[in-house]
Amino acid sequence: MDNSADAFDVVILGAGSGGYSCALRASQLGLSVALVEKDKLGGTCLHVGCIPTKALLHAAEVADAARDSAKVGVTATFDGIDVPALHAYKDGVVTRLHKGLTGLVRGRGITVVEGEGRLVDQRTVEVAGRRLTGRHLVLATGSTPRTLPGLDVDGERVLTSDHALRLYRVPASVVVVGGGVIGCEFASVWRSFGAEVTIVEALPRLVPGEDEASSRALERAFRKRGITARTGVGFSAAERTASGVRLTLDDDQVLEAEVVLVAVGRGPVTEGLGFAEHGIELDRGFVVTDERCRTSVEGVFAVGDIVPGLQLAHRGFAQGIFVAEEIAGLEPRPIADETVPRVTYCDPEVASVGITEATARERYGDAVEVLTYDLGGNGKSQILQTQGFVKLVRRTDGPVVGIHLVGARVGEMVAEAQLIVGWEAHPADVAPLLHAHPTQGEALGEAHLALAGSPLHAHA
Amino acid sequence: MDNSADAFDVVILGAGSGGYSCALRASQLGLSVALVEKDKLGGTCLHVGCIPTKALLHAAEVADAARDSAKVGVTATFDGIDVPALHAYKDGVVTRLHKGLTGLVRGRGITVVEGEGRLVDQRTVEVAGRRLTGRHLVLATGSTPRTLPGLDVDGERVLTSDHALRLYRVPASVVVVGGGVIGCEFASVWRSFGAEVTIVEALPRLVPGEDEASSRALERAFRKRGITARTGVGFSAAERTASGVRLTLDDDQVLEAEVVLVAVGRGPVTEGLGFAEHGIELDRGFVVTDERCRTSVEGVFAVGDIVPGLQLAHRGFAQGIFVAEEIAGLEPRPIADETVPRVTYCDPEVASVGITEATARERYGDAVEVLTYDLGGNGKSQILQTQGFVKLVRRTDGPVVGIHLVGARVGEMVAEAQLIVGWEAHPADVAPLLHAHPTQGEALGEAHLALAGSPLHAHA
Repeated sequence: MDNSADAFDVVILGAGSGGYSCALRASQLGLSVALVEKDKLGGTCLHVGCIPTKALLHAAEVADAARDSAKVGVTATFDGIDVPALHAYKDGVVTRLHKGLTGLVRGRGITVVEGEGRLVDQRTVEVAGRRLTGRHLVLATGSTPRTLPGLDVDGERVLTSDHALRLYRVPASVVVVGGGVIGCEFASVWRSFGAEVTIVEALPRLVPGEDEASSRALERAFRKRGITARTGVGFSAAERTASGVRLTLDDDQVLEAEVVLVAVGRGPVTEGLGFAEHGIELDRGFVVTDERCRTSVEGVFAVGDIVPGLQLAHRGFAQGIFVAEEIAGLEPRPIADETVPRVTYCDPEVASVGITEATARERYGDAVEVLTYDLGGNGKSQILQTQGFVKLVRRTDGPVVGIHLVGARVGEMVAEAQLIVGWEAHPADVAPLLHAHPTQGEALGEAHLALAGSPLHAHA
Repeated sequence: MDNSADAFDVVILGAGSGGYSCALRASQLGLSVALVEKDKLGGTCLHVGCIPTKALLHAAEVADAARDSAKVGVTATFDGIDVPALHAYKDGVVTRLHKGLTGLVRGRGITVVEGEGRLVDQRTVEVAGRRLTGRHLVLATGSTPRTLPGLDVDGERVLTSDHALRLYRVPASVVVVGGGVIGCEFASVWRSFGAEVTIVEALPRLVPGEDEASSRALERAFRKRGITARTGVGFSAAERTASGVRLTLDDDQVLEAEVVLVAVGRGPVTEGLGFAEHGIELDRGFVVTDERCRTSVEGVFAVGDIVPGLQLAHRGFAQGIFVAEEIAGLEPRPIADETVPRVTYCDPEVASVGITEATARERYGDAVEVLTYDLGGNGKSQILQTQGFVKLVRRTDGPVVGIHLVGARVGEMVAEAQLIVGWEAHPADVAPLLHAHPTQGEALGEAHLALAGSPLHAHA
């Protein structure tokens, strides 16, 4: 081992969820760690991703609660959004969490190096003239919003999510291009804040990665909220007008809006960092890894959004821990994408873990059972005045392989769901255990009771 | 088997959570069932318990959201409670669920008999002159609010929870006698609605059945909300005044309020029903059973609030299913009270499953590990602007035996917690699985990660 000051057991490039979790776990396991970050500890998730968007979504929930308060016997009025206060709230949450994370990283003796790092050989990262050599390298450089050709992002009329988070007004009208997680979340926020919202999605349905039943339920709920979804149609041209943007779709329909949000996914940040030059295999910009997060170069790992698969903070977080334990020789169990829970935090929320019904039928043919429990029978959901369902997908006489949830606040229910799928539980393992009454979690209990009790009990 | 029209496999006395779940499961298993109810299907829980109180608590949440909306950048005003609309909302939820339950029971071919039933022999219930004979009897007669000597309930100034649910105004001031689940929930509702609230609890702390840390956290949170808790002091005298009630406590302090709520627990409804007369052993009014819900009379079972232990709807519900399966010969696993989740739905919520730290230390001495994870480190809880914790209690090198939660909405987190305790999981079983970011459930994941990674890492 190199004993010079700039030699480490692990050098990590990027301090987002994957990078910092790797750093924390590695240092906990006694390894020396350098953590390189060009911006701020916490990365996209903390600063321009999960956390600030969920703060906006909570403000949206409060706006809706006030607007709809008469329905529950509360007299209140919704008068609008105080944009400076909204940003102060959102930024306050981010700042507090950032401070906590910074303290944690500092307390662990991790060497944090600020600046943009790039590979100069297969073990060395150069940052602002300083060279950091690692016995192991971990690439965790994250992702950035993708754009579409012909939709020139200007940050004023045509926005990415980065701009949308900083927008200092509530637009009167928005077209959201892209009906995935990010698009649906912003559509939901803006609608709650009072904007006219249209979503354009080229694929046939919103949240196309989810079970088809979830997409249908979300589309219905959005329609009721006055959010228009145009699915199965692409965008063909955009032009700026005096008051905003005019968008032409593939079917020649024209949409006009004050702003357009481009939410067509996130691309990996791997260019110009010396990855390919030093033999690290890339595929369309993503770093190719095996299930143990190993790249094509011995001793170099990759985690998070640059690794093909679900671009989710908690996946990166778990991969970071995995790699630290792998380097420390603990032989951890690889993270299967199918046990990674997914949540779209719009209203209603869409959450899932495991595989969809369609995937299960492709994989297991007829040996699949499905049960849908409607939240109409769930007391707490009735109290929350939300609609939705719990859908279980199991292998016949086998474990539950997919759980799909739609409804207000169901994002929290996926905590139990991921244990069930992760532990490969059978419905009969869950059925005898007690869910608290009245909680939304009971719906999961009821669904398992029903599936354990009767062999094929599916209904829509 | 008796073939007369009024002979059944199972006769169930009481159609609350325990009674109706037993009826549904028994009929599903092919047994003929008579279900006797003097009031309405659904019992206390649906009509004057869990469901209507949680509807009020949701209205309280909406009121608080509107009142505190500026903190999240939303401009809204809270102008008060529209009491008729509040009741319409609450009653609407109850009516919808009641209708659903009635349809379900009817659809299963269960014979529902309205009227007050009483035992006339060890197998026969008499209802309004009609005699129903069962191969098995199930007693599920439920509970009713207890009162205190010297505190004469008049339904106007001195209320039980039954009256409080029907109260057609928001009182300016309330004294709640009893700081258990029901007392804390009503205190929370009334405070959110604008009342001055004082809780008097004879035991040294609020929610005395919970872990001491939970009580402390709740007391702190209530104090911040302006709810005064007077613990460790009893009530000694009450008198009506022109404007309400004057209460004198054991320490001679005098409290005045517009109304007093007596929330000192619920007593079993077992008197005058022929139980004792036909050999069913009672203990202070409760029906004595073994762990298989068997009473002292062969073939007669008891479930729900008349059975000593936790008086919770989901416990009764599970016992009802258990007894149906027992009668059908399925040999179900008995329900251990220690795997029954408990939730107090006030703000903040208090939830738990398993045993407290104090009980664990009594039982296992030094071989106990405790870990407390503060919600200050949990992103979603920061977004919700709530404080609280996740506290894990495990046997050293053994399973998690208790999980204690405080904070907004943590009642839903107990769904995962009960699986962990019910399945006797070790922290290392939970730690590698992924919680969605940002959810409150992550706090449970982090706590298990911490407890799996380091042998003793407790902090307050």
